Amino acid sequence: MKNSLHIYNTLSRKKEHFEPWQPPFVGLYACGPTVYGNAHLGHARQAVTFDVLYRYLTHLDYKVRYVRNITDVGHLENDADEGEDKILKKARLEKLEPMEVVQQYMNAYHRNMQELNVLPPSIEPRASGHIIEQQQLVKKIIDTGYAYETNGSVYFDVLKFNEKYAYGKLSGRKIDELLGNTRTLEGQSEKRNPIDFALWKKADSSHIMKWPSEWSEGYPGWHLECSTMSLKYLGENIDIHGGGLDLLFPHHECEIAQNVAGSGKEGVKYWMHNNMITIKGQKMGRSLDNFITLDELFEKGHRLVSRTFDPMVIRFFILQAHYRSTLDFSEDALSASEKGLQRLQDALFILDNLQASSKGVVNAEELNEKCIRAMNDDLNTPVLISHLFDGVKTINSVQEKRISIDQENLDHLKDIYNTYVHSILGINPFVKDSSTTGISDKLIESILQLRQKAKQRNDWDTADEIRNTLQKMGISIKDKKDGVDWEFM
Amino acid sequence: MKNSLHIYNTLSRKKEHFEPWQPPFVGLYACGPTVYGNAHLGHARQAVTFDVLYRYLTHLDYKVRYVRNITDVGHLENDADEGEDKILKKARLEKLEPMEVVQQYMNAYHRNMQELNVLPPSIEPRASGHIIEQQQLVKKIIDTGYAYETNGSVYFDVLKFNEKYAYGKLSGRKIDELLGNTRTLEGQSEKRNPIDFALWKKADSSHIMKWPSEWSEGYPGWHLECSTMSLKYLGENIDIHGGGLDLLFPHHECEIAQNVAGSGKEGVKYWMHNNMITIKGQKMGRSLDNFITLDELFEKGHRLVSRTFDPMVIRFFILQAHYRSTLDFSEDALSASEKGLQRLQDALFILDNLQASSKGVVNAEELNEKCIRAMNDDLNTPVLISHLFDGVKTINSVQEKRISIDQENLDHLKDIYNTYVHSILGINPFVKDSSTTGISDKLIESILQLRQKAKQRNDWDTADEIRNTLQKMGISIKDKKDGVDWEFM
Repeated sequence: MKNSLHIYNTLSRKKEHFEPWQPPFVGLYACGPTVYGNAHLGHARQAVTFDVLYRYLTHLDYKVRYVRNITDVGHLENDADEGEDKILKKARLEKLEPMEVVQQYMNAYHRNMQELNVLPPSIEPRASGHIIEQQQLVKKIIDTGYAYETNGSVYFDVLKFNEKYAYGKLSGRKIDELLGNTRTLEGQSEKRNPIDFALWKKADSSHIMKWPSEWSEGYPGWHLECSTMSLKYLGENIDIHGGGLDLLFPHHECEIAQNVAGSGKEGVKYWMHNNMITIKGQKMGRSLDNFITLDELFEKGHRLVSRTFDPMVIRFFILQAHYRSTLDFSEDALSASEKGLQRLQDALFILDNLQASSKGVVNAEELNEKCIRAMNDDLNTPVLISHLFDGVKTINSVQEKRISIDQENLDHLKDIYNTYVHSILGINPFVKDSSTTGISDKLIESILQLRQKAKQRNDWDTADEIRNTLQKMGISIKDKKDGVDWEFM
Repeated sequence: MKNSLHIYNTLSRKKEHFEPWQPPFVGLYACGPTVYGNAHLGHARQAVTFDVLYRYLTHLDYKVRYVRNITDVGHLENDADEGEDKILKKARLEKLEPMEVVQQYMNAYHRNMQELNVLPPSIEPRASGHIIEQQQLVKKIIDTGYAYETNGSVYFDVLKFNEKYAYGKLSGRKIDELLGNTRTLEGQSEKRNPIDFALWKKADSSHIMKWPSEWSEGYPGWHLECSTMSLKYLGENIDIHGGGLDLLFPHHECEIAQNVAGSGKEGVKYWMHNNMITIKGQKMGRSLDNFITLDELFEKGHRLVSRTFDPMVIRFFILQAHYRSTLDFSEDALSASEKGLQRLQDALFILDNLQASSKGVVNAEELNEKCIRAMNDDLNTPVLISHLFDGVKTINSVQEKRISIDQENLDHLKDIYNTYVHSILGINPFVKDSSTTGISDKLIESILQLRQKAKQRNDWDTADEIRNTLQKMGISIKDKKDGVDWEFM
């Protein structure tokens, strides 16, 4: 049962049985962020998707080496080969040294990932930290004849590659169509063909992030880093390479071409892509002004939502859709997820305090098998969650003494929820960890309820005492017609 | 007043007036950790020392670029030029890829720093990410004649350097004594002289972390990275270079030699060194088995302490000594710091709720000037803290209505405590941040006090209700003779 994981391979357009090259070892590479701005919902979805994969593979007892990179150089605007480096542009606008920009947004990304309970990868290599290795791969590709130098820049020769191999294999694009779609932009005359892509770019004199090479003082092309770093840390046979669907073309297509041209091997056995987040049906983008960062969602607020949401709600919201479906964002959808998560968390509380009977009718293993089947079916988290909600009904029925459960099944049930909710879905337990804000809020609400009851029985001394106690702790309360508001002063 | 900061310059052995090369900009470099093990008290002291410097310079309106490196390659055992790389050794013992070891301990270090409320530096460069730049510096030093190649390794020629410049200038060591003290170790025959040090080491075939160079497949010497990365991110005129006193020789001495040989400039205007932590009077060290990691101190426990301590207590403990004094660690000393910190935090609560009178006798500016003087006197945090404790007496006297304070002085006093305690000393405010465990604990204690009072007036309904409310939240309480115990279930 445990070994029947199937995952959808973008390369074959099919669900395939997952068999790593060298079990029990699994090499997993997922594209990380270009650190020139705050992380947004799209970053959250990609990170959570591959975090759950990482967690599930680990749960299946695979020894996973998970590599997720940081792009801190070479990613030009519009993902093209011309234009300004995204980080340099930000550095210019914010008048900072580029590496200060990188550090600032990398730290912010790490903070957001921690808030989302995304586990850190085993290795998090940075593009700027692997310039020599990238230059070595460029040399190899020149040596095999699939790259050429023009004016100090080196380009990948797509047409020549396509004569022997299939460029477009992963994304399903056809060379002829690609050729028809390209526009010739200024400076592209360096390329033999507009669909060639840069491996090494000569830097102009004002460019700050550049390194010496045998071709020019320059910097690596964006696609090159992922080929280089996956090769360095996972070898030529990588089990899984993941990323957002927006990276499928040209980024991943170019990676395959680089791998094949450099080593003769495609490198990756399973390509996995998570789908995009839409905002009320529209694509999310800076240009559409519907761009929501995680900081805005968690604490700062945004015009598209009337309030902020706990990071665990966002995580749960993401997991309630299958990773290959688009996920439409709206406040209503988030609020629904919040209620669902609350119901699940409440059930976990109840479960923790449930009493077993000498005999019972609950069969926990049935639920367990359904959960395994859902996860083994291409990480079907929405189905998994629906099974867990079925179990919530069972838990509530036991609590209400409408049905009974024996000790063995109770223990098994606790184990199932702990495993799936906490270990695999990565939902933080709420209460036992007193460092989450959740508990303080809950405690304050409880104290206020006590005060409310004291007032109802005209016990004004207790009511005042509670108010004073809270005030001493920096919490102010305000009586309203329909209840009480409170806030940290 | 604000501009009269004096800092002790190890180079001159004097307190000097601090004047940056190009005000308002300050370039600050502090040596970061070699990430092959868990951070210990020594790491905490160094990080907190330069964090307070960074915070104070920022408070003085300097624009500080703070660079703190991560050593992830090239640091050999016993800080020598022979022997195993510390990270490779750990990787071999733990059977991990070296970069996994680096990632694991780097993440742990960042977590510890966050717990200690140490601000992240502006740039945190990694040695392995700057191989090209290090090679460029080696070339420069070869070109100026102060380095030579033997069998693919490159060494710095200390004697030749000393003919023109003063090697030993920073540490006060004399060349003759150094020559007398050296032992000839196996393999050192590559060096012209035993006190020469490696800039580039040829790697043997089993070595994993190595890069191509014009001399050999190899790796940089440990001292090289700090010269290289300080130069890259702060330029040839660096205002302050800091580190622990254990780095004074040979590490920083060699850095100066590299800087001078490479660029003709010493590079650094002010060298600052924090003193060591001793454990009950003894040096802390793995060999002495009195090594305490921060994780042990914060949560895991260690045989030298009977309990764990909040990271803020450790921070406060560190700041209660001047950074240039040795600091002796013991549980009694920590407990005393804990009490002191609690007294200070309590006073801050009281201060927040203090009432002003129309007239008053308290002169807040007097306190402020004393605080400024203490910080300007080579960051004298213990004197600063003693002034803040004098202020606590004032605060308590006002609360007890023995003296009065007017609104202007009350506002000023609040501002002083907020600035010095939170912004400069970096002590986390306890209560307003609901994410600290402090508030949950305090809330629970408050609820329990309410229950105690209910019981005293024989209001058993309320007492039971409170017990049930807490139980629902996973908190169990246990009545005892002398009070109530509680814990998360």
